[in-house]
Amino acid sequence: MPTPVVLDCDPGHDDAIAILLAAGAPELDLRAITTVAANQTLDKVTLNAQRICSAAGISVPIARGCSRPLVRPLYVAEDIHGESGLDGPSFGAISVGVVEDHAVDIMHAGEPVTLIATGALTNVALYLQRYGTSGVREIVLMGGSTERGNTTPYAEFNIYVDPEAAAVVFASGVPVTMIGLNVTHQALVTPSVVARFEALGPLGRLCGELMTFFAATYRDVFGFAAPPLHDPVAVARVIDPSLVTCVEAFVGIETTGTLTRGATVVDLHGRMGFEPNAQVAVGLDVDRFFDRVIDAVARLT
Amino acid sequence: MPTPVVLDCDPGHDDAIAILLAAGAPELDLRAITTVAANQTLDKVTLNAQRICSAAGISVPIARGCSRPLVRPLYVAEDIHGESGLDGPSFGAISVGVVEDHAVDIMHAGEPVTLIATGALTNVALYLQRYGTSGVREIVLMGGSTERGNTTPYAEFNIYVDPEAAAVVFASGVPVTMIGLNVTHQALVTPSVVARFEALGPLGRLCGELMTFFAATYRDVFGFAAPPLHDPVAVARVIDPSLVTCVEAFVGIETTGTLTRGATVVDLHGRMGFEPNAQVAVGLDVDRFFDRVIDAVARLT
Amino acid sequence: MPTPVVLDCDPGHDDAIAILLAAGAPELDLRAITTVAANQTLDKVTLNAQRICSAAGISVPIARGCSRPLVRPLYVAEDIHGESGLDGPSFGAISVGVVEDHAVDIMHAGEPVTLIATGALTNVALYLQRYGTSGVREIVLMGGSTERGNTTPYAEFNIYVDPEAAAVVFASGVPVTMIGLNVTHQALVTPSVVARFEALGPLGRLCGELMTFFAATYRDVFGFAAPPLHDPVAVARVIDPSLVTCVEAFVGIETTGTLTRGATVVDLHGRMGFEPNAQVAVGLDVDRFFDRVIDAVARLT
Amino acid sequence: MPTPVVLDCDPGHDDAIAILLAAGAPELDLRAITTVAANQTLDKVTLNAQRICSAAGISVPIARGCSRPLVRPLYVAEDIHGESGLDGPSFGAISVGVVEDHAVDIMHAGEPVTLIATGALTNVALYLQRYGTSGVREIVLMGGSTERGNTTPYAEFNIYVDPEAAAVVFASGVPVTMIGLNVTHQALVTPSVVARFEALGPLGRLCGELMTFFAATYRDVFGFAAPPLHDPVAVARVIDPSLVTCVEAFVGIETTGTLTRGATVVDLHGRMGFEPNAQVAVGLDVDRFFDRVIDAVARLT
Repeated sequence: MPTPVVLDCDPGHDDAIAILLAAGAPELDLRAITTVAANQTLDKVTLNAQRICSAAGISVPIARGCSRPLVRPLYVAEDIHGESGLDGPSFGAISVGVVEDHAVDIMHAGEPVTLIATGALTNVALYLQRYGTSGVREIVLMGGSTERGNTTPYAEFNIYVDPEAAAVVFASGVPVTMIGLNVTHQALVTPSVVARFEALGPLGRLCGELMTFFAATYRDVFGFAAPPLHDPVAVARVIDPSLVTCVEAFVGIETTGTLTRGATVVDLHGRMGFEPNAQVAVGLDVDRFFDRVIDAVARLT
Repeated sequence: MPTPVVLDCDPGHDDAIAILLAAGAPELDLRAITTVAANQTLDKVTLNAQRICSAAGISVPIARGCSRPLVRPLYVAEDIHGESGLDGPSFGAISVGVVEDHAVDIMHAGEPVTLIATGALTNVALYLQRYGTSGVREIVLMGGSTERGNTTPYAEFNIYVDPEAAAVVFASGVPVTMIGLNVTHQALVTPSVVARFEALGPLGRLCGELMTFFAATYRDVFGFAAPPLHDPVAVARVIDPSLVTCVEAFVGIETTGTLTRGATVVDLHGRMGFEPNAQVAVGLDVDRFFDRVIDAVARLT
Repeated sequence: MPTPVVLDCDPGHDDAIAILLAAGAPELDLRAITTVAANQTLDKVTLNAQRICSAAGISVPIARGCSRPLVRPLYVAEDIHGESGLDGPSFGAISVGVVEDHAVDIMHAGEPVTLIATGALTNVALYLQRYGTSGVREIVLMGGSTERGNTTPYAEFNIYVDPEAAAVVFASGVPVTMIGLNVTHQALVTPSVVARFEALGPLGRLCGELMTFFAATYRDVFGFAAPPLHDPVAVARVIDPSLVTCVEAFVGIETTGTLTRGATVVDLHGRMGFEPNAQVAVGLDVDRFFDRVIDAVARLT
Repeated sequence: MPTPVVLDCDPGHDDAIAILLAAGAPELDLRAITTVAANQTLDKVTLNAQRICSAAGISVPIARGCSRPLVRPLYVAEDIHGESGLDGPSFGAISVGVVEDHAVDIMHAGEPVTLIATGALTNVALYLQRYGTSGVREIVLMGGSTERGNTTPYAEFNIYVDPEAAAVVFASGVPVTMIGLNVTHQALVTPSVVARFEALGPLGRLCGELMTFFAATYRDVFGFAAPPLHDPVAVARVIDPSLVTCVEAFVGIETTGTLTRGATVVDLHGRMGFEPNAQVAVGLDVDRFFDRVIDAVARLT
């Protein structure tokens, strides 16, 4: 039986590949795609979800969620994902719509699901506040880091955008798995990965174009030789847990720091005296990960 | 045309009188009562709303809202309102039910309304996150203070319980009126007010019993000679704005302070350089206020 | 035996009167005047101490202390005290110098003294860090409030300027008495007080000119009908404790709040569970206070 | 001309080696050793400084400094350095005394020096507050990290103990070089290093005993295979800058965070928009570093 999942995302270049991986992996039953403001505004990221689903022939419901973080104003990542949130390719006509229901109502529509969250955690926190924890089996999120961040020295973008929502999620009691930069920075889209995408036909070439734009901003902003495919690693963890090694640890979210807002404080050595509240990714089987990404895109082609 | 209102509350002794005032005042069209955890747990305050409506023959929909604050754990006021949240009287049989809809969905059910909020602002913040600002005409809340607080030296209980929700409300752009302790501490239920309640028959005697319990905890905890009828002042402001004098000011909510969590920082003299974002109550016509409270209970009798 | 005191100040109009009161009261043995940056820069407030001592024929050592707060940048009160820190009168020639020793070394020079602190608490905190607590009998400070502040809604100027120093002082274990705005705002220099000053000859007329300038800024900035003589109330408490009624309470200093930096959190009702650490002024015998001020100036004349 | 330095330290096992390196390196003119509470209480670390100087025949002035951090209570590292702060060896008779002057007065005694700080930065901050910046040429400190910390996930011990002092130092305008865990964790005292110490005679054997104790606590607390020689790296940087590679960056100190107190926020990629205020160590020539340590001990033997 495939695992029923809802993918809550803010496409975004790596979210786009995460959608393809979630839709193309036979181990997953993708029930819905929900959108949240983070990489770009809610309107833009929702349109981007429609663009990817249209290009790939994915027909799951797409539902709009929160247009701003729980407490703070919105902060977007235009420097990384461009003005549209998915700069690079030309997209064809939109063939899939958006349902009327709000993201949190769609998450709650059927049997309990695994939530894969690859944007700010606003929708997930709103869901937990509105419906409680009974309707969600587990939450696997891309966000945070055990080491340095990418938006500020100690904060990763998704958590930085809505630290209060992240605090709610980690304190919720729902099983949470955190896939942070310490692992996603191993999932580098090298030219050989791009070539594997491009060999897959039109959808693969679209992926290639996305990765080419993404490579340029990562090189310019962060000096990376190749861009990291953050969000698909969270999807991969649900497809096959053996792809991502995790350890149990306490993760606290810094919400009051002046210079450290949104830091994920991961107590790997148990120095702080708190009970573990998350599985924290510490390793990635890079080759098998990319095999699964390529395989999923190939299945959608 | 009576003003359509939803009363979001956590009864609570003074909330109980607020319900009676909102239901009995001809200027208001009470569309629904919604409940939120604060003075006591959600189950208890919802039951208390049913108790008061049953006793007074009020038949508006009652809807449950949030069982905990937006980000923090729940903190209740058992020292003030007792174990049930409405200690003192014996209540009769419950004759009114609770609707299935969530508080925020009920708030959004019809035409735009005035939200009168007399508990923690969790439901209101959740509503704004879920539905945006278009469905609410204004928010009149009991909470905060321009002077000292009551839960900590500078924090009033409703804001202390959910400061993040309060921050969302004051930053929302919706017209907000804050009715704080600086004014509600003038609405003291003296023995002569109790006598006026008791002269009104069974419902009035119930009010008298509530006020007698409330007087005892306020005397023991705060050393007050008579207890303040906080929440009805917010209702009174909507009934007749001339009952409560307000000034326009910036109100910030302290969410990061170690000793000042939940302080309402009211910049009465414009020292901080922020734009005003609220009407802030600074005066109360005490005699006319109590006349309206007594009149409303009399109408329900 | 007169009480040996060191007056640590930042003149400042009300500090100027505090110097005269400390020098002119027979109950006090004023050992030294030390200066600290707050109302104005260290150079300016030191010059102002020299000006007042020169005008009044006071010949105690004057020692310079800290030119900036313990941790934060300096914030001055030019809107209240003018560009010189003591705007208004023309001062005559300076006839008293400044000693070479640093303020904290002067404080430590002889037998244990009572420190009267009427500026930011930087020197006092530095003293405690450098020499420990054994050399000071008690600290009586003008600062803070049990109610609203004057620099921000909940912070009084002296504490706002150096909240970390204030935190050190209140946590030091030395007996501390806090004279806050809640009491000093009763010490209003009405025209009749000004007239009493002016009847005392040249020094009295200088006081009158200072108060006339001070009245204008307090009227313009805060809308006060008459300016409050903050700092001399702290001196008065040492002269005759019966002039200022105090209660014992816990006082915490907010150092992390975003909007409440420097608030003095005075737990008058014991709600926070901390041990009392200060005597907190709650009442002033206004008439006897002004009698003592006038008497001190008269004695110096 | 050897560089005049004052070593401000809290011995501590790695501080002990730092003392030997500073005293034994011909490039340095060690003017004084000053002590500060951190690894252990002031009494204990001062005694430890005397022990090391007695054992090694070092006769520079030793001066006591601050017994507690600038604002917060003291937190010591007994789990790492033992009850004495220098557990492991038996020490011989004390042959060197402690001068009467306070650490900050000794720092100011002569010509401007380079301050090498290997404990909490309390003395250095007190010095800057008391004497200003003119008497110090530069500050080279062991503390902080560009990556994870050792006391909490993002805070290194020396900065965690007194974050306000660290904030003062980094904001002072004095040239500051930060030698953090990211580099000192490369200076691992392997068995072959221990063997090199032990070959040097009695003083070397004392070093070997210190390192054997230190290795055991680092293995038990942190799971390290060999202990890192943190503090001597700061001394090495002054001896020969080419031993430690640095980059210029902004370093902010988190003083308000709930979970990140004392984090050194090092903006390596210039994402925060602040001007660089420090040289930050990013590389160490490990072999040449240990050669210099061994050489210094050999010279003292």
